[in-house]
Order: sequence, then structure tokens, then C-alpha cells
Amino acid sequence: MSIVDRSQKMQVASLVGLSQVVVDYDTIPDVLPNEVLVKVEAVGICGSDIHYYQHGHIGARKVQYPHIQGHEFAGTVVEVGEQVTNFAVGDRVTVEPGVPCRMCEKCRSGKYNLCDQVVFLSTPPHKGALRQYISHPEDFVFPIPDELTFEEATLAEPLSVAIHALKRANLRPGMRILITGMGPVGLMCVCAASFYNASEIVVTDMVKHKLQVATELGATSTIEIPLETIPEDYFDIVIETSGARPALQSGIRALEKGGKLVSIGFPKDAEVPIDLTMMLQRELDLITVYRYANTFPLAISILKELKEVVGTVITSTFELEHIDEAMKKATETHLDSIKVIVYPNKSGKKQNTE
Amino acid sequence: MSIVDRSQKMQVASLVGLSQVVVDYDTIPDVLPNEVLVKVEAVGICGSDIHYYQHGHIGARKVQYPHIQGHEFAGTVVEVGEQVTNFAVGDRVTVEPGVPCRMCEKCRSGKYNLCDQVVFLSTPPHKGALRQYISHPEDFVFPIPDELTFEEATLAEPLSVAIHALKRANLRPGMRILITGMGPVGLMCVCAASFYNASEIVVTDMVKHKLQVATELGATSTIEIPLETIPEDYFDIVIETSGARPALQSGIRALEKGGKLVSIGFPKDAEVPIDLTMMLQRELDLITVYRYANTFPLAISILKELKEVVGTVITSTFELEHIDEAMKKATETHLDSIKVIVYPNKSGKKQNTE
Amino acid sequence: MSIVDRSQKMQVASLVGLSQVVVDYDTIPDVLPNEVLVKVEAVGICGSDIHYYQHGHIGARKVQYPHIQGHEFAGTVVEVGEQVTNFAVGDRVTVEPGVPCRMCEKCRSGKYNLCDQVVFLSTPPHKGALRQYISHPEDFVFPIPDELTFEEATLAEPLSVAIHALKRANLRPGMRILITGMGPVGLMCVCAASFYNASEIVVTDMVKHKLQVATELGATSTIEIPLETIPEDYFDIVIETSGARPALQSGIRALEKGGKLVSIGFPKDAEVPIDLTMMLQRELDLITVYRYANTFPLAISILKELKEVVGTVITSTFELEHIDEAMKKATETHLDSIKVIVYPNKSGKKQNTE
Amino acid sequence: MSIVDRSQKMQVASLVGLSQVVVDYDTIPDVLPNEVLVKVEAVGICGSDIHYYQHGHIGARKVQYPHIQGHEFAGTVVEVGEQVTNFAVGDRVTVEPGVPCRMCEKCRSGKYNLCDQVVFLSTPPHKGALRQYISHPEDFVFPIPDELTFEEATLAEPLSVAIHALKRANLRPGMRILITGMGPVGLMCVCAASFYNASEIVVTDMVKHKLQVATELGATSTIEIPLETIPEDYFDIVIETSGARPALQSGIRALEKGGKLVSIGFPKDAEVPIDLTMMLQRELDLITVYRYANTFPLAISILKELKEVVGTVITSTFELEHIDEAMKKATETHLDSIKVIVYPNKSGKKQNTE
Repeated sequence: MSIVDRSQKMQVASLVGLSQVVVDYDTIPDVLPNEVLVKVEAVGICGSDIHYYQHGHIGARKVQYPHIQGHEFAGTVVEVGEQVTNFAVGDRVTVEPGVPCRMCEKCRSGKYNLCDQVVFLSTPPHKGALRQYISHPEDFVFPIPDELTFEEATLAEPLSVAIHALKRANLRPGMRILITGMGPVGLMCVCAASFYNASEIVVTDMVKHKLQVATELGATSTIEIPLETIPEDYFDIVIETSGARPALQSGIRALEKGGKLVSIGFPKDAEVPIDLTMMLQRELDLITVYRYANTFPLAISILKELKEVVGTVITSTFELEHIDEAMKKATETHLDSIKVIVYPNKSGKKQNTE
Repeated sequence: MSIVDRSQKMQVASLVGLSQVVVDYDTIPDVLPNEVLVKVEAVGICGSDIHYYQHGHIGARKVQYPHIQGHEFAGTVVEVGEQVTNFAVGDRVTVEPGVPCRMCEKCRSGKYNLCDQVVFLSTPPHKGALRQYISHPEDFVFPIPDELTFEEATLAEPLSVAIHALKRANLRPGMRILITGMGPVGLMCVCAASFYNASEIVVTDMVKHKLQVATELGATSTIEIPLETIPEDYFDIVIETSGARPALQSGIRALEKGGKLVSIGFPKDAEVPIDLTMMLQRELDLITVYRYANTFPLAISILKELKEVVGTVITSTFELEHIDEAMKKATETHLDSIKVIVYPNKSGKKQNTE
Repeated sequence: MSIVDRSQKMQVASLVGLSQVVVDYDTIPDVLPNEVLVKVEAVGICGSDIHYYQHGHIGARKVQYPHIQGHEFAGTVVEVGEQVTNFAVGDRVTVEPGVPCRMCEKCRSGKYNLCDQVVFLSTPPHKGALRQYISHPEDFVFPIPDELTFEEATLAEPLSVAIHALKRANLRPGMRILITGMGPVGLMCVCAASFYNASEIVVTDMVKHKLQVATELGATSTIEIPLETIPEDYFDIVIETSGARPALQSGIRALEKGGKLVSIGFPKDAEVPIDLTMMLQRELDLITVYRYANTFPLAISILKELKEVVGTVITSTFELEHIDEAMKKATETHLDSIKVIVYPNKSGKKQNTE
Repeated sequence: MSIVDRSQKMQVASLVGLSQVVVDYDTIPDVLPNEVLVKVEAVGICGSDIHYYQHGHIGARKVQYPHIQGHEFAGTVVEVGEQVTNFAVGDRVTVEPGVPCRMCEKCRSGKYNLCDQVVFLSTPPHKGALRQYISHPEDFVFPIPDELTFEEATLAEPLSVAIHALKRANLRPGMRILITGMGPVGLMCVCAASFYNASEIVVTDMVKHKLQVATELGATSTIEIPLETIPEDYFDIVIETSGARPALQSGIRALEKGGKLVSIGFPKDAEVPIDLTMMLQRELDLITVYRYANTFPLAISILKELKEVVGTVITSTFELEHIDEAMKKATETHLDSIKVIVYPNKSGKKQNTE
């Protein structure tokens, strides 16, 4: 069954060069038997989207123009493949954007985020979700409750990174956690740590507004960098989301014996100096986080529980026709901009904070 | 009960200045109710002993002269305190040299190697075992089987570091492991990995003889640095024992997605550059190892199983009166010297490979 | 320093025979160097206290009359031993009643609840806390925050059992949990599961009032036994606190594939029939819980967070002189009685719901 | 590419009624793009095969006649689907017989043995491998080394159960393990425990010959039931493979505090009485095992290492035309019969111990 009119073309946000994005038109995709077609109602702009937009590559992964970005999104099911059993037309959903091969040793052992063959929406050469319609396998599509707006539901993706980080660090109730960098992922780590009932959630950033948002989301105290200093030898877990060298270094010093530094943020240069001597003397571990696995249902639960406050991370919204302006706004992370949302369809727009 | 003559003084190896060690005399220690008195028959010289001997400090920990070194040792029980229940005079034993406070949160949760109040023999300001007699709490003393010589039993200490490393890395049968640096700890890692039935145990060193010893102990293939190169993207676990910067860096590259780099060796400079970007893209972890906890019974089992070959790591033995010569020999790690053993009592000497 | 007058004797609740308890007098205990003397302000009556009171033994452990019961308690420090560093006279505290040997393999590996040599207050032959003063090693004494009354602080002990159960079951946020039996331990499991953010907390009991208390403490739905039935093949974790055979049996059926049945409650007969075939076909585990280890700090945190509601489990309070009446009340678990509190000193009484 | 002649029919062992099996003919199956076609060279008869053969059902799962049994097998690749990348015609392989849905929460989290939609060869209604050719997805097919015969390679399946049991029990080197019941799975547990370097492997059975085979495979001591008794309060892990009530009961008593009873064998009656009181007092766990996941590569490694001895478990071999005789022999588990092998093709036969 379908309620989509395939005689029409759909709009897509087409990246055509460095910092150049335009609205283009493309055919509405078909669905395979195990796929659903999602009308995309809201798309969040991720830090990696911004990096590809500005630099054309991340490490060895290069954009092939024209490209479509976007992998944090929510929408409505408008068509289901013939084998689909869990969804019906009209369902409100969010989407896990990386579909692994399901066959390799990593997939079979539950670590599918490490699958070499994963198709991850918006990571070159795979196209992303900044378009009006997208098809996706049903087992990587998740229903969202009525309480959540589409904009809020897009946060299930960055929140998944945060959940994966806490699972890898084995955060347990009562632990003391420091989170450095209050970009979207750092703020989602605050949400997750709050849900996991860490006893203290201390956060750092250089932008006062972001610290305020963190407090609303559950941070128990804030440190404004570089004016204030980070306590040493105190935390069970540090989650570093900024990639900034000083954050990594003070993160190690901040850990109590036996503590874990969880690294999420990519550093500017591939190599960073690490105080291995201090790590050895305190038996500290450096844990890294690459995407996530098996996190979406929990992410949606957390968003629902934090519904009253989680919207504060969304600082701007744009219609797809203003994608150029949206991307520019998204680059202003040194100012108050946190999360920018784009509406590929008119129907997605519920609010506009601009 | 006791078979020691306290009217006599005992000999000790007294460190009196940088690279200056002499034989001195001291009172034979008393035993507390929960302690045994051990007649020290063999003492291994550890890399940290060598570092204190040459530099007078490790990081902020400074030697106060005169000092006594040595914490890898075995001997015979010659007196037991009144509450001692597990030992009798005549028992052959080896000793776990670090006695923790038993009261702090680390001790209570099984991580007593991280206890802030630990008394660790030979780590300043605590005196070590290079002397004829030493008293120690019975629960940190372990019986050794007849099959093991005292010299071999001293290896329970460095082997404990190796076991702790494998436990922290969660090595399971069938995994592929790379071990960089074939000093005593690296070689003990080979023994432990062999006992844990890693499917491949690949080792590196710059000294051919050490690679040969590694092969005898269970290494499945060897890499002579820098002539041969280390495979990339292949191993489940890398254990780095040398502290050498290139070993750390090639260790990261050697790991397969989801792998773990276990760091044991202290680097020359406190900070080392780490390719955090590669670590993030492969979700690698850097695990550090500080001493050990709850390892001695297993260490003794492993030594017993590897009895035929484990003695090959002992490359020189000396009587206590030649302690100066012994320490100098122990510094020659760039040559064929691996483990130097000292006999504080004439009775300890069973063999002398010089 | 001390503020206790040792020229006076102290009152104790003396168990002198089956269901016979009287007020007696005894010497105020001295403190060892590492101990504090606690003026006992509130004592909770535990199910095991009731069992010893009624039957004179639990399994092979027999009461030697006269005996002193009680191991859930809180009070004020009135004297500190000379080595005590963490407490001062006047501190409000609660006490972990089992002090292990600190030396055996279990103690060293963090499982001190399994120590064979543990001295557990009130478990024969060791005397308990139903008296005006008791001495205890400072590392098994924990400060309580001003927000908590002494009565509430006594709950740290049964809550510790609940925390240990959740840790053994590895409850993670988002899981579905069933808790059978809403006695004090079952209700504490509700508190802990709520703090751990289980997504559903379903509870069972035969007494409506207890289900109401469970709802106040965080249960998301209730099942009145035997009127209502338990869903099958649904829960990730079942915690069985009643020891009732039907609860165990329906608990197994209630579990989803891969689920865990956590057993806390002792059954009436040593042996119970278990549907091992169903357990095998769903790969279910039966996890048991014996006391707790390393739980008190977290227990106190949870009590503080649930401060508004946790007092609802305290259904009666008595002065020590009415200990006979208190014990009788405590046996009425088939009625609305949940937790009975006794005040050994006049100063402890803050409320009396009788 | 293919070397199979599809103009011919293939032979199959057709189960046509209770204890009635005949040779029949069927079409050689086609391969899907991700499948290989395996010429079946050796098939082991499993205890579950025997149970279906004798009783027509296991629990609620009923045979629909005619049925094909067999799921422990090895053979040669004779055709590969167009997407197959890891195999070529002529490869010697063994097969993991259960193919899960790859989409459900269990599959995605690495517990695919619990997938509700698994297609498991020979479990009704799915047909098994007692035939000349079978097609199977390539990611559930594993290459075998030249050192292993086809007969030996069929043991990868029951050995997988053993490995899964040890993984679930978290067996670590140095632990003491008791294994009750020396049928094929019990013997494979001995192999696995030996490979994992358990310090003691004690085994029980009523048949002397099976105890002898266990000793060849690595058991360190044997207990002949009921003549000899099982030590109490001693083992870290007990693996119960017989399903016999006394074995379960003595297994619990055999465990040291904190130990784990791992149950593999199905009991005769669904319910068995368990001494829950003892389990609680010693904090014992009952862990169950249902098939396996992610075990085949390790199983093949273990078989290769134990190559010299592992063949001792194969006590009879038959050609497919004698399938009736083979099944009858397989039922004689109370005698010396351990593992019966059937050769569907003439080429499979390398030895015949009859």
C-alpha cells in the first residue's frame, strides 16, 4: 500500500561543491520487499555533515558531487514493502541510518557498528536523507511515540552515540561523570547520563549558553572553559566530545584511579599527545566510540522521558528551500547554535525558532 | 616456631647512591602475628629496580638512601606468627610484594592494586627483598610446588603483570595477539598468552636471542625490529611492554576493528603521540596495566606447566656479595641479558649460567 | 574522644527463648583503634530476625540464648578509636553489619559477601544491634545526609540486598522487570529498579496495601495475586523475593528468551521444583543473591533521592521497652505490616505511626 | 560453477515413522545467490536425532513424516551461488546448521541462538543433512583444515555447544570444573575445558569406557557413578550434560561459594527439584545453554589442536544404505556407543570402526 504520488519528482538538497548546496529534483525511490518508504519530515544537521560540507572529505572518505547529506531524521511511513510486518502507512518513525551486511563476524556478534560493509546514509558514497522521501529496511526503522515531535525524534541518532558511549564505559548508577564539550553529542551524553542516574554530571564548554542548556538537561554543575578549571583525580568516567587537545589532556587528569576516558570527538590532527605515564600509574583506560549498535529503542525512551527539556538543543529550523542558509547557520558552533533542523516537506514544520 | 638465629645480623644489598650498591648488615626482622619470616633464596632484578638504581627515582617517587631493592623473590619459611594458619617452617614459598590497606573502596571491590595505601616492597620509601630475611603477611605468601626452583618461582611476580594484562584485555581462546618487546614482562606475556590458548602469538624485539626465547615459550611467529614490519589491521589484542613510541604507534595500526592495545611499558617521556583518529575509526581501546591483583595462584600454575622452558628467561645469576656486578649486568637489556637472579643466601644457589 | 558515660549500663533487647524477648542490661562496649561507638537510634526488624525469633534457627544456624537481634540500624557516633580518620563524635551514620576477614580469596576479589569468616551482626553466634550502643569498624560505617531520618537510613541495609540483586542481574536502563513479593526487600527492589531506570517495573503481592506502597515507590503496574495473572514470555529480569513456590514458577514463565530469574527469598522447603526444560529452551538463568558487597554508598544515594516516598515502607515504630510488642507486630506480614522500627534510645524517636 | 549432475536424484535418509527410517530419493537442491551446495560426506547422529527417531517429538515440536534428520556434518563444496565470495568448488567444509533471521533484536545483539525465526536443519519442520547434497548460506559454512577428517569435522557442532557453555560460564584458566555425563556433548566439554586450561577437569559417568575416553581428551580425574562420590563445596563450575536428576543435585552440592551450575542436558520430566536454599546460601547460579552462537571457528581450532585424540569419540560408522542399523546403534548410549557417523556418499568413508 502506498500514499505517494510517483508521477511527481521529489526535492533533494544537493551538495555540488565545497560549501555549495542547492535544491534539486530526483525520482522518488522504490521500496524493496523488506523496506518502508519514509516521507522525511525533519532532518538534523550533524557535525560530520558540516565537515563534509566545508572540507569535502573526512580523512580518506571523499564526497563525490553531487551528494546528499543528512542522517538524523524522522518522518512518516507512506509505503511499505510486501514483506514488511511491523509498519503501516501513517506510522510516525525515526530511522537508524547505518544498515550493516548482517553476515560478517562483527554483525553476527552484535558489533554491527564495526561492519566493513555498512551502508550508512550520507557517508560517501551513500546518499543521505536531506530529501523528501527515502526508503529503508524496516528493521532499522523505529516507531516514535505521539509525545515526541519529529524534530525531537531526530535526536535519537546523536543520542544513540551517547548511549553507546555510556554502555562502552559501563556507567552505573552512582558514578561521577565529566563530559567535555557541549555540542549536540555532548548534550545528548548529559541526557543519557542523567537517565542512567550518574550521581554527578559535570560539564564543560566555552559557550555559556550551552552550559545553561546542559543544566536544563541534567548537568549537576558546569565549568566554563578556560575561565574555570577541571577538578583532578575525581571522576569515574570522562566523556570527551570536542576533540580538543586540552580537553583530552585535562580529561585524563580528571580521572580517579581505574577511571575511563571515553573519546567521541575527532581531533583536528590525527595524532594527539597523551600522558601515558599518568594513565599507567592510575590504570586508566581510553575507550573510543564509533557510531552505535542496538541503541534506538532506548534512545526513544530517553527522549520521551526528557520530553519537557530536550527541545532546548534545537536552536534553528529551516525549510529545505533555505538549505544553504541552514548549513551556514549549522557552522556557527562557536556561537549559540547547537542543533539545526531542516524540513524537507512543508508538513514537517511545527515550529521555527528563527 | 622458628629456625632462625636472631643473635646474628643478616646481609642486605644496600643502595647508597646513584648506581652504587654495597653489602650491608641489618637486624633480622620480627614477625607480627599474621606474618611469616621468609629466608630469601632468590631475587629477580626488575626493570623498575634498574631504573631506580640508575636514576634514583621514577617520576615523583624518590629513593631515600640507603635503600633496599628487590620485589621478585622466593624462599623458605623459617618462622611463623602466632595467628598464621596456612604455613609451617620449611615451606617453600613465593611472595606477592604489595600489601594493600584492605579497607578502602578499591580493596573492598577487588582492585587492590589501585589502593592508595599499598605497601609495596622496594618502592620507596618501603624497603625491598634483596636481603637474607624478610617478614610478610601470610595472605600475600604463596606455596610453590616441588617442581619449581626458587629462581623460577621468582617469575610469579612479572608473570602476574602479564596475567593482569590478559585479564584486563579479556583475552579468550582463539584470539590473535601481538606482543611488542621481549623483555621479562613481554616474555611472561608470551607464557600467559600461550596458557590462555591464543591462536596466534606474534612477538617483536630488536634482539634476535630474545625472539628465540619467545619462540621457546610459545610465540607462534617473530618479527625482528626494525628489519621486519608488523602486519596492520589484524590482531585482536596488542600488548605493548617496551614503552617505545614506535611500538605504540605500530601497535595501534596492527589492531583489527574493535581491538585493544594494552600498555604496560612506561614511555621515556610522560606524553606520547597517539593516532586517536585511527582509534576512533576502528573503535580501538587503550587499556593500561598497573601491577596486578589476585594473580599469584594462577601464575604459579602457569610456571609449573611451562616448567621445561620457563627457565630460559634467566640469563645470569649472582650471589649477594656480587650485587654490584649483578645490577650492572641487569642494565644490559640491549644485549642478550633478560632476567638476572641474585641469591641472598648461599642455600639459594642451584645453578649459575655465568 | 567520647561523649558516652561508661559508668552506666546500656539497655539491650535480649532474646531468651522462642518468641520471648525481654529488656536486659549490659556493659557499653569498648572500641578498638579502628572502630567507632555508635549510639543506636533506630533499628529495623528484618525477616530473618522474625524467623530466628519464631523458630530459633535458620537451617543449621541456631540461636544460643540469650541472643541480641537486629542488623538494620542507624545512629550517632559517640566515640572514635584512635586510628579512626573518617568520623567524629556527633556524625549521623548507618552501618553495614557484616565485617569480612579481609584476607581470603573472596575478600581479595571483591566478593566479600561470600567470606566464610564474616562476622555478621545478629547472625548467631554474633550479637546484633537491638541495644543502645554498638562498636563497629569505621570502614563499615557510612555517613548519612541530613535529609534522611534515622528510620529511613536503616533501609540502607535491605536496599543493599536489592542493589546487589540488580547488579548481579546486570539490569540496564530500558529493561522490563517483574518483582514478586512486596515485603521490605521487594519494595526496596522497586526503589532500586526505579533508580536504575527500568522501563517497566511490574510487581506482585497478595496484599493490596503493599501494591499501593510499591506504586508510590515507582512500580509502573501491579498484579494482585492470585486474582490477577502474570504475563508470560515478556520480562528481561524477574526478581523473586517471596520464596513462594508459585512465584518462582510463574517467574520462569514470565521471562523472555535469555532472561534472568533472580532469587532472593528463601523457600519454605529447601528444594523447589523448577521447570528446567523451559529454562533450557529459552536459555534462562537462575541467579541467587546472598547479602551484598560494596552497596552502602549507592543505597544511601537512592534513599536520598527517594526521600519523599521511601518512608511509606515504615508501618510501625516502638521504643525498646516495647520490644515484645514490636516483634509481634513484625510477624504480621500477611496484614499491612511492612517494616517495624525500634528505638533503643529515647532520642531516636521522631515519629510513631501506631 | 558447479560439478554436480542435477540429472540424477540424490539419496536421502527418510524418517517415515517411529523408529522407521528408509533410504529414499529426492531432487538435488538449487542454490540461492548467497548459498553453496555441499556434497555431504559425513553426518554425526545427535542425541536429539535419537529422541525424535524414538519418540516423534521433543516437547511441542512434532515430526511431520517423512522427515530428514541430521545436523552435524561436513562435506565438499560442489557449487557456489553467484554472490558467494568465500568458497570455491572443492573446498572442504563443515556447516553451522541454524540460520537465524538476521533482523530481530536477538540477531542484532549477537544472541542469534535465541532468534525466534531460526531455520535449524533437522528440527521439524526443517529437513536435515542425512542426504547426499544440501545447500546453505555461505556465512554459516566454515572451511576445515586438511588435518581434520570429515568425521572429525562433524564434531564442530557438538563442540560448539560445549564452547557456548564455557563462554556462558565465563570459564577462565585455572578454574576447577566438574562435567557430569560423558556423552558426546560432555566429552566435547572436556575438550573445550582442556583448551581453556581449566586447572582440574573432573568427569562423571556410569560407563567406564566413556571415562577412559574422557581421560584421553583431557580429564584430570574421573568418578564412576554410582560407585564413587562427587566432592562437595569444591568446584568453580559444574557442567551438567546428562539431564539426570541426581547429577543436577550433586552438581549443586559440588559447587564452591559463588559457583555456577551450567545445565545442558534436558531432564526426563520438565520439572526437577533444585536445592534453592543451598544455592542461596552459597550464591550459586544456574546457567542454561541453548545451542550456540559465534563458535564454529574456535571449534575447528580446538579440533585441530586435539586431532590426535578427538577421533576416539567416534565409535561406529555406517554407509547411508545402513541408516536403519546406524540409528539403532546410536540408541545404545548405555553401552560403549558414543558417536555414530553416517556416510551419505561413498566418498566420505575413510575408516570404519565396526
